[in-house]
Amino acid sequence: MRSTASNAGRNGTIEAALGRIAPPDAKIAREVARRLDEKTKPRGSLGRLEELACRLGAIRGAVPDHVLAPAIVVAAADHGVASAGVSAYPREVTRQMLANFSHGGAAVCVLAHEVGARLVVVDAGVDGAPLLEGVRDAAVPGIRGTQDFTRGPAMERATAVALIERGLALSDELADEGIEIVALGEMGIGNSTAASALAATLLPAPPEEVCGPGTGLDAAGVDRKIEVVRGALDVNGFGGEAVADPLDALARVGGLEIAFLVGVLLGAAGRRLPVLLDGFISGAAALVAGRLEPRAIGSTIAGTRSPEPGHALILAALELEPLLDLGIRLGEGAGAALALPLVRAAVSVLLDMSTFSTAGVADREEHDAVPARAGTTSGA
Amino acid sequence: MRSTASNAGRNGTIEAALGRIAPPDAKIAREVARRLDEKTKPRGSLGRLEELACRLGAIRGAVPDHVLAPAIVVAAADHGVASAGVSAYPREVTRQMLANFSHGGAAVCVLAHEVGARLVVVDAGVDGAPLLEGVRDAAVPGIRGTQDFTRGPAMERATAVALIERGLALSDELADEGIEIVALGEMGIGNSTAASALAATLLPAPPEEVCGPGTGLDAAGVDRKIEVVRGALDVNGFGGEAVADPLDALARVGGLEIAFLVGVLLGAAGRRLPVLLDGFISGAAALVAGRLEPRAIGSTIAGTRSPEPGHALILAALELEPLLDLGIRLGEGAGAALALPLVRAAVSVLLDMSTFSTAGVADREEHDAVPARAGTTSGA
Repeated sequence: MRSTASNAGRNGTIEAALGRIAPPDAKIAREVARRLDEKTKPRGSLGRLEELACRLGAIRGAVPDHVLAPAIVVAAADHGVASAGVSAYPREVTRQMLANFSHGGAAVCVLAHEVGARLVVVDAGVDGAPLLEGVRDAAVPGIRGTQDFTRGPAMERATAVALIERGLALSDELADEGIEIVALGEMGIGNSTAASALAATLLPAPPEEVCGPGTGLDAAGVDRKIEVVRGALDVNGFGGEAVADPLDALARVGGLEIAFLVGVLLGAAGRRLPVLLDGFISGAAALVAGRLEPRAIGSTIAGTRSPEPGHALILAALELEPLLDLGIRLGEGAGAALALPLVRAAVSVLLDMSTFSTAGVADREEHDAVPARAGTTSGA
Repeated sequence: MRSTASNAGRNGTIEAALGRIAPPDAKIAREVARRLDEKTKPRGSLGRLEELACRLGAIRGAVPDHVLAPAIVVAAADHGVASAGVSAYPREVTRQMLANFSHGGAAVCVLAHEVGARLVVVDAGVDGAPLLEGVRDAAVPGIRGTQDFTRGPAMERATAVALIERGLALSDELADEGIEIVALGEMGIGNSTAASALAATLLPAPPEEVCGPGTGLDAAGVDRKIEVVRGALDVNGFGGEAVADPLDALARVGGLEIAFLVGVLLGAAGRRLPVLLDGFISGAAALVAGRLEPRAIGSTIAGTRSPEPGHALILAALELEPLLDLGIRLGEGAGAALALPLVRAAVSVLLDMSTFSTAGVADREEHDAVPARAGTTSGA
């Protein structure tokens, strides 16, 4: 199986997608900063909201002239490793939550509605999932969950490639349909173990530094998870040194939904759509994407900091500072959804605030020559 | 002047307002937490968003059954100490920004519009302010700015009391009109110096630990500000020990808009309206309010952390942890406005998410007895 998987190593579609990714446009960032400096506020006084506006412009390659139309992509899949008792919830919950996404009852549904984002729910390989209204079927035929990666690779390399391609295709569709920013979300019982294994492999980092309680393990459960990840690394030949081939790591210890999100991220970056990251799992997808093409990270914005210890390490490795730090550890894209109003506000400030000159407000340069009345000028 | 001011010490209106402030209802908080635990998410996985929902319910004294209608109150006033060169901007900017608020061009106008909040702009004593459309005149007749508190008290005690009363009246009006949460904002060239002096007096803290760059002072400017605050404390007889009478501190080294916001906060708390704080200046108002009636702080929510060093000390003293930490140091209520979507989301999650039972999702207690299909039950 190993040699078969490796034959898919050079994939034309993915290589082409990586080649389309341009770095953020620093000139646009400077132009956004210049315009913000004309607004009626002390320079820089909106802090990271101003940085965000600059980054959005740089990623888009243009000074924003309207608020960005958002979509939240939630990819779900099952994990063979769930049978190892690494989650507080049973495997069936993945399928049940997919139905919950479809019916609008999950947290991300409520939050997407709140922020006016299109919610795209994706079945990337959920065991026993029926056809559900509004759920995009992106599963590879016959692949309804990964294999238990404590016994061998989670998936064939060809499966990982196929899911990345499906993610690329979704981003192309979204861009074609006018979506201008994509937030990443996921669901999959066991997927914080997969994200931990990916982080341990790619950063690299010892399993005990990346594993956390996930959806709610107790201390004994976290210890078990650490052993599971250690075993997965052993079985798959990842001995603690950084792995050069991120696709190999993704296939061996990743997840189907994570592979799909890697594709969404790379595809969005190639279309100059900012990618708003959620927590630990989408962070692991970003880690893989960044190892495939470092410039892809230039298109990302970290929405939220997860309390999972591995997330802090990933964010540090990607040099990203999250907008929110509210102890959110749900996944689903909930943290990213909560950051979307900040994205909207950053652009609105750029578009709608008055400038010092139009509002007749004295700027600090005029300190020694302030007009006696607003709107007049003084030569003094 | 000192004895005249002290005669207003016991003010019936303020005493009555303090008496109306009830503590947050812990039973309601527990009921909100119980309902959140039934929602389809791991318990507590929405982190501080869940705490926020509980706190909102506790303050309101009822489990929220709809999203709260918000108002942002922006109070503006001038400061005698502005003549001491403690701001990067000239005094006239207070008046010019009041006009900018009225015309909709300021940051808080854009953000209030974004989040669907009513914006209430208040003239609490702006020098030379003309009558402006949509600006509430709350100034005490003849008081268009404080006196320079490096030479004596900023205002008479009666003036502080009158402005608090005007703030109380506004909160009553807003509550009567259906507003359910109030965010505090302010504008006043020199008011970070007043907030610093109040923090130094009431915490107490050395001036060098509370003074920061405000709208953009350089290091020499911050040093000058520290000396100004030190001088203000000396002249007004505050020697570095905690001051027992918060109204005295407010009158001697505070500001007109700060006094008004103290009234808004106390009035809102008395009507069970949550009060969303902005940065350093509204924090100083909360510090005064909390010294008048500690239970008032139970009705507050910290929206944002200002980089001003005094703000961290105030937040620690009030035991508040801000929702956002984005380096925002504008004032105006901009940081509070940016936190309003989180308030809205916290309530929406409580209202609109499915429960485990209605969605047919297995909860963790069912780990060993999970139904084979969603919606069925199992006795196993």
